Amino acid sequence: MPPSEKIKVGVLGATGTVGQRFIQLLSTHPYFVLHSLGASARSAGQTYSSVTRWKLSSPMPEIVRDMMVHECRPDVGGFDECGVVFSGLDHDVAGEIEESFRSSEIPIFSNAKNHRRDPLVPLIVPLVNSSHLSIIPQQQSLLGLKKGFILCNANCSTTGVVVPLAALEKSFGPLKTVMITTLQAISGAGYPGVSSMDIMDNVVPFIGGEEEKIEWETLKILGGIKQVEHQNQNQNQNLKNGKNETKLEFDYHQENKLKISAQCNRVPVLDGHLSCVSVEFSQNVKPTLKEIENAFKNYTSEAQELNVPSSPKRSIILHENQDRPQPRLDRDLENGACVSVGRIRECGVLDFKFICLVDNVRLGAATSSVMNAEIAVEKGYVR
Amino acid sequence: MPPSEKIKVGVLGATGTVGQRFIQLLSTHPYFVLHSLGASARSAGQTYSSVTRWKLSSPMPEIVRDMMVHECRPDVGGFDECGVVFSGLDHDVAGEIEESFRSSEIPIFSNAKNHRRDPLVPLIVPLVNSSHLSIIPQQQSLLGLKKGFILCNANCSTTGVVVPLAALEKSFGPLKTVMITTLQAISGAGYPGVSSMDIMDNVVPFIGGEEEKIEWETLKILGGIKQVEHQNQNQNQNLKNGKNETKLEFDYHQENKLKISAQCNRVPVLDGHLSCVSVEFSQNVKPTLKEIENAFKNYTSEAQELNVPSSPKRSIILHENQDRPQPRLDRDLENGACVSVGRIRECGVLDFKFICLVDNVRLGAATSSVMNAEIAVEKGYVR
Amino acid sequence: MPPSEKIKVGVLGATGTVGQRFIQLLSTHPYFVLHSLGASARSAGQTYSSVTRWKLSSPMPEIVRDMMVHECRPDVGGFDECGVVFSGLDHDVAGEIEESFRSSEIPIFSNAKNHRRDPLVPLIVPLVNSSHLSIIPQQQSLLGLKKGFILCNANCSTTGVVVPLAALEKSFGPLKTVMITTLQAISGAGYPGVSSMDIMDNVVPFIGGEEEKIEWETLKILGGIKQVEHQNQNQNQNLKNGKNETKLEFDYHQENKLKISAQCNRVPVLDGHLSCVSVEFSQNVKPTLKEIENAFKNYTSEAQELNVPSSPKRSIILHENQDRPQPRLDRDLENGACVSVGRIRECGVLDFKFICLVDNVRLGAATSSVMNAEIAVEKGYVR
Amino acid sequence: MPPSEKIKVGVLGATGTVGQRFIQLLSTHPYFVLHSLGASARSAGQTYSSVTRWKLSSPMPEIVRDMMVHECRPDVGGFDECGVVFSGLDHDVAGEIEESFRSSEIPIFSNAKNHRRDPLVPLIVPLVNSSHLSIIPQQQSLLGLKKGFILCNANCSTTGVVVPLAALEKSFGPLKTVMITTLQAISGAGYPGVSSMDIMDNVVPFIGGEEEKIEWETLKILGGIKQVEHQNQNQNQNLKNGKNETKLEFDYHQENKLKISAQCNRVPVLDGHLSCVSVEFSQNVKPTLKEIENAFKNYTSEAQELNVPSSPKRSIILHENQDRPQPRLDRDLENGACVSVGRIRECGVLDFKFICLVDNVRLGAATSSVMNAEIAVEKGYVR
Repeated sequence: MPPSEKIKVGVLGATGTVGQRFIQLLSTHPYFVLHSLGASARSAGQTYSSVTRWKLSSPMPEIVRDMMVHECRPDVGGFDECGVVFSGLDHDVAGEIEESFRSSEIPIFSNAKNHRRDPLVPLIVPLVNSSHLSIIPQQQSLLGLKKGFILCNANCSTTGVVVPLAALEKSFGPLKTVMITTLQAISGAGYPGVSSMDIMDNVVPFIGGEEEKIEWETLKILGGIKQVEHQNQNQNQNLKNGKNETKLEFDYHQENKLKISAQCNRVPVLDGHLSCVSVEFSQNVKPTLKEIENAFKNYTSEAQELNVPSSPKRSIILHENQDRPQPRLDRDLENGACVSVGRIRECGVLDFKFICLVDNVRLGAATSSVMNAEIAVEKGYVR
Repeated sequence: MPPSEKIKVGVLGATGTVGQRFIQLLSTHPYFVLHSLGASARSAGQTYSSVTRWKLSSPMPEIVRDMMVHECRPDVGGFDECGVVFSGLDHDVAGEIEESFRSSEIPIFSNAKNHRRDPLVPLIVPLVNSSHLSIIPQQQSLLGLKKGFILCNANCSTTGVVVPLAALEKSFGPLKTVMITTLQAISGAGYPGVSSMDIMDNVVPFIGGEEEKIEWETLKILGGIKQVEHQNQNQNQNLKNGKNETKLEFDYHQENKLKISAQCNRVPVLDGHLSCVSVEFSQNVKPTLKEIENAFKNYTSEAQELNVPSSPKRSIILHENQDRPQPRLDRDLENGACVSVGRIRECGVLDFKFICLVDNVRLGAATSSVMNAEIAVEKGYVR
Repeated sequence: MPPSEKIKVGVLGATGTVGQRFIQLLSTHPYFVLHSLGASARSAGQTYSSVTRWKLSSPMPEIVRDMMVHECRPDVGGFDECGVVFSGLDHDVAGEIEESFRSSEIPIFSNAKNHRRDPLVPLIVPLVNSSHLSIIPQQQSLLGLKKGFILCNANCSTTGVVVPLAALEKSFGPLKTVMITTLQAISGAGYPGVSSMDIMDNVVPFIGGEEEKIEWETLKILGGIKQVEHQNQNQNQNLKNGKNETKLEFDYHQENKLKISAQCNRVPVLDGHLSCVSVEFSQNVKPTLKEIENAFKNYTSEAQELNVPSSPKRSIILHENQDRPQPRLDRDLENGACVSVGRIRECGVLDFKFICLVDNVRLGAATSSVMNAEIAVEKGYVR
Repeated sequence: MPPSEKIKVGVLGATGTVGQRFIQLLSTHPYFVLHSLGASARSAGQTYSSVTRWKLSSPMPEIVRDMMVHECRPDVGGFDECGVVFSGLDHDVAGEIEESFRSSEIPIFSNAKNHRRDPLVPLIVPLVNSSHLSIIPQQQSLLGLKKGFILCNANCSTTGVVVPLAALEKSFGPLKTVMITTLQAISGAGYPGVSSMDIMDNVVPFIGGEEEKIEWETLKILGGIKQVEHQNQNQNQNLKNGKNETKLEFDYHQENKLKISAQCNRVPVLDGHLSCVSVEFSQNVKPTLKEIENAFKNYTSEAQELNVPSSPKRSIILHENQDRPQPRLDRDLENGACVSVGRIRECGVLDFKFICLVDNVRLGAATSSVMNAEIAVEKGYVR
């Protein structure tokens, strides 16, 4: 249900590639209205169209052409009037700026990696673990905030893999082993990003930090949130009333001892990360191929149940042709907001293998962040 | 040691992409001299330059420009004067043609897949298992031949993976598990092969039959040859002298129970198949990273020991940069006759993972076949 | 104004790349409803989805999935109930099939080249010379037909160039000289079309017959239709009533002595033909840069005036950035139904030079044909 | 004839892409021996291999791996012991650095654009106008130097076009009109240069300053050097002895009133600039196609006559296939030191049109500079 009045929103890093995606998605959004644009001091004080090298094939929305660009500070440019601010900042500046906005009681939905590992910050793939929003009140109370918080979406390649993994766990219980090899698009590196001299007629079999991100983020996203009683032995002032304190913690899927190994490659593709995945189940009785197909087909997420505007009709699209999904042909399905799965078959080593595809610049980045904000609105975390 | 007189050789499928590579390699070869060219009936009776759409960046060798092209029959075009005939034929015609040449006592070194699974035919990656040439006498005796035989080289993607696997087994004993994801070049599909409409800005995550080839061929290549005593219970005529018969058989690495799973992708790269590999050893004490590096660095093959002309100086080149090997930058090393290995690191699931690269049109195809022939000359199988 | 009842339409060559585009455009069309699908005898009798390798990034429309495919004959498959049949046939079969449909009183809107030079057949770029529809009655009367006719759209590269040329002639009178160098997308060659082995990391500076098409078709399209009195000296039977006969003829722009030279290249781009054009005017007083910009900006076509469904809002989009238009970024403008123009500047040899871009698979092919049919409906040539 | 002792040479900008090409060419050169390497202050004091991201597919020459990199100053690193220093510097620093080397009596062979328009500096395409070396003594005398001078090679795209134009002028006299459209490789923009996000599946129809360079440099290169008598009216001190002074000047081909217009495009090709050219001759009687073919085939340059080491056997290679030359297939001919020409045919506007191809990183850059130095050695300008 859309809010009675559109919520004013801001975009940090508005001139960059992720920022441009945010603007494209938000320029005609039923919940949100673009109110504030932030970029580097170099661009501040000028109109958006004059400082932006627009890189999308759809034209720059008219609504932002003459909007003024401001520095990324919560006290300028109307950011303090925003109910939500989206961050498409580079990680080298995102950390402090996002915290300063949170301190100013502005909810931040960030695509940057800086706070993903923070034990107070939910790391949310909207088609998987929107239940983790429940940790927000604890983030706020520990920081003494009423409205401000930081919420991260996951790395683009993690996002593409974790959706089908969640579908398998939902149907067949915890996974035991996952092996992943990615073939990632150049847009994942931003702009100018990958030099054409490096990638034409070539593969670059290394993406800094990417394998670690997939292996680590997957555990946080597929994990739950547990209540932990703290005995607070060293904090006597809390013990005077004789009660232990209960705190929420991510369990990082460690109780299940999920083992993950990822290998990441950059390939000459514009958009769309493809992954080759092999999985092993914990349960003794292995599902059949047919059961796995059904687990993918029937998978639904809270985003779909809430029917938020950016939600895909189907979270997972199962392809029947043996050579699909393919990045160029399938990245546009569901406006880039779903994950495509195909080629499910038995694995000679683990139980099953399959391939999956995500649009890294949409569900893998800006679309996830916007969908997370829509869910947060629906569930009352943004007021 | 080069033969006292150059051996006349022929090429079947001479106008195709593999055939052109054969011609390039053989036009200035110290052991061999081009004598006969075979192609389809449509091209027969015309000069090579008039029927060939030459696709290599080096010009067509002058020596073949005016050579006459003949049908692929052992009784025409001087094929019966050849000591070796190389086959770059498509698999839809290779089977019968190659057999007819063998029946005519002409040794065939084939790049086609048709006879790779034949229990009498050695499947040889020259940097790995040239010892399997020892089965040739049995192939000849069972077929009543004196000189003719068929010898196959492996599939291009198999070749790239099996060399480093052999190096690991040589140093650390049998492998237990191997998982492979390939990123294969378009030239692996021949000409015209992959439509540009299919592969530009795209990945095709399926190559018909390729995963099965890798999984199966690896077992034959890494396996040994065992002596089997046949009790011949059902063949009484053989038992009359009371003796069992000893036969050679490939052991297909089955005694080691090696488990392999492969996933294959076509990527927009001209030449060079890259593979992401994870391995698990059988032995209890795992080698260290340093020991694995040394195993790759120090690996040598019989081709190197015999010092045949197409042999690389190093069978495996180990790369230190974390983003190497890359197809375009490293496929030319050792004239495309080696395998590049890099990014050796621990695997979160199996023991270690690494990447490897092979030039699919050279070591992965024609160069292997020519090197196999050179080894066969040196070891006396070709006279 | 849409027809009171949707007109049944057919598609010949429905399984090919142009055919797929026709089906995409026609599956939800306000004037037309898909009724009959024609393809080769090999596909006839089977459902569309079972015989078609769908190559567009948008999914195959549900409406055609289960439609039966028929042979391309006017007497089967309901083609005789169609008010319009679109032909995406290859030129090697298009000629006779299209004539047989015309003979059966079925109007054919063809993308094939076969009849483009026919002096009775209008060659129409809908944003330029829809006035040439006026020759249809003469085509019909000479062939003794009431409803049937053939109408061709132009070659894709011609289409992209002739729209801005028409705009210049509309404002400044006849051109004297035009020099064109094209950089054409691979989709212009159909599927499988250009081998990836030929075009990756490469340019193919030759497209068979293309330069001649541009040079010739431009004259027919930019020319007018003149009334010619035939004295019929050799046809006495027509002279008996003492009257000369008046006939319509294309003037092929020859009275203006327009000189054209084209050079055509294939480049590694999926969709979008870019052309570098230099022009010289006939009039003595040269227009200024500003006047030329206005001529492009203000150009309108009959398609726009009639406001037919496929018409772009702007026939020509003038780009201000000095590095635009670019194929990937600008081919989607106006749903691919316009021509983009940019980089207008003085030429050191002729008067001015500029670049222009057309979506070769939309305005350059199927969209033109459909727009031509819409105009024909509006002007009463299709009933 | 090689010098009796190898001449010590230095490379400025040694870590960049042009610098790497210089090093590749010079590491095994019969005239020259690498002695000094210059780069930015950031790299100074470290070994070449530690500061260089080597981008060529052939490995970094062993000889330079441990050489120390120095600042680009004539007084450090042994530059003052060099007989020749090659400059692969970026234009933003090349100007002053090159002048400081010249002032220190070190001959500079520069690939940078800074001094190309200097009326004292020869702009030399070694296959065309090595006769312009004759202006060096005047450069030296006016600057009071004995050994130092600056010599530039031309822009990469100019180089590719000017060789066939020179061949035409040599056979048929001055050209009247030249129209050029280029399709240029990404390597022309250096590293990282063109972002993959900009060029994949795309053409960028603009290269800053490139069209002007082609139009202007061609005039200087195809022009001659004339003796001009200065009457020195305003310089009385020179008139006292009653003599006029004679000075050499480039004539910039202006007496021939050559008109040139160029349009430049960046295409997704790694190496090799292709140009589509149309020409008009001044002479009344036009040559035939056959005569033009012969003019290209028979064209020789001074570099060939002197038989310097980098000289190609043939300056121009004429291709017979109608779809050649192509960048990927033909850029390696003559080790990238020649120009390929093809598709000669009549032009509907000017007299003839043809296409030509140059390897922009070899003859279009480093190879030209090295060949210029070889010629300078042979002709005695370097001692």
